[in-house]
Amino acid sequence: MQYSSALLEAVIAELTRLPGLGRKSAQRIAFHLLRSGEADAKRLAQAILDLKARVQDCHVCGNVTETQPCALCADTRRDATTICVVEQPMDVLAIERTGEYRGVYHVLKGALSPIDGIGPEQLKLAELISRVKSSGAVEVIVATNPTAQGEATALYIARLLQGVPGVRVTRIARGVPMGSDLEFSDQVTLARAMSGRKEI
Amino acid sequence: MQYSSALLEAVIAELTRLPGLGRKSAQRIAFHLLRSGEADAKRLAQAILDLKARVQDCHVCGNVTETQPCALCADTRRDATTICVVEQPMDVLAIERTGEYRGVYHVLKGALSPIDGIGPEQLKLAELISRVKSSGAVEVIVATNPTAQGEATALYIARLLQGVPGVRVTRIARGVPMGSDLEFSDQVTLARAMSGRKEI
Repeated sequence: MQYSSALLEAVIAELTRLPGLGRKSAQRIAFHLLRSGEADAKRLAQAILDLKARVQDCHVCGNVTETQPCALCADTRRDATTICVVEQPMDVLAIERTGEYRGVYHVLKGALSPIDGIGPEQLKLAELISRVKSSGAVEVIVATNPTAQGEATALYIARLLQGVPGVRVTRIARGVPMGSDLEFSDQVTLARAMSGRKEI
Repeated sequence: MQYSSALLEAVIAELTRLPGLGRKSAQRIAFHLLRSGEADAKRLAQAILDLKARVQDCHVCGNVTETQPCALCADTRRDATTICVVEQPMDVLAIERTGEYRGVYHVLKGALSPIDGIGPEQLKLAELISRVKSSGAVEVIVATNPTAQGEATALYIARLLQGVPGVRVTRIARGVPMGSDLEFSDQVTLARAMSGRKEI
């Protein structure tokens, strides 16, 4: 690498630190930036700087936003009595894409994982409980990931909210994904799909 | 997407314009930048800006550089009488990685492709010819890609340099790649490997 441009190497090194980008992809992107117009590269750099400078967490739900509260929390057409709990802001985007949900969200910023040192204090759990109590919520849909950590977090939330009157805690359905082949489903998913069966 | 942060969407949009990044990967990177330290994101943005502001083409070989001539051309230990012709600066990196080549390079900035409007004038061919004539080169190794365009360019270069005395024009070997299975080699490659056979 000694003969490459140091500045080019710097871009490649920074790109390699991003998730999902190996040396080859980073190199391809760096050369693309080098070839592309000055304006394109500047716009990317500026967008990154703006992101860090101005995007923050919504004080109400923890989702990413530039305004307080976020557009979702501020939207009076949304049902504020139904709160969907997710691990990350990306999960909000994923659920919004379905177009099926009209309630609000609560972003935990992770899931319980003692092995990684993530206990209840590292998550936005206290905020969730006080929000549920003060907002007159009637349903809390726990949409944490169907992983060991996500399931543990869901159970923990259910226990925390057990004493709160008038609040139903539900969990998103886990089963075989639409469009998949039973043959290729793992046994845990298939067992869950069997036990979670419903009358047609 | 109406509920996402506009600034976050801007970063995702800019990232999606880069080669090899789809919406999902761009989203993952954008959220990673959002979570990562301020310094990390700034370093990436600055590296991109520096790249555009200060990296240029070497006036001699056309490779990317911050100095004139580039470190490769300036290195007196390299054999300046052997010139390896490649399509892009990335190819220089690839050949340098082998550690086997001690000559210099000439970057064409593409390959002949009439269908894309790329003729001899769009490539650094005139520069190559005058460089070969003036530098006392004894060998020009044509290392353009083994594609239709790269092969056409190689033949074109060979014809251009036919009249120049004392210059040998060679082409990198094309055949079955090391570590591959003959069974999975395409027929053009295999035919080339057969016709290009050498005594052991």
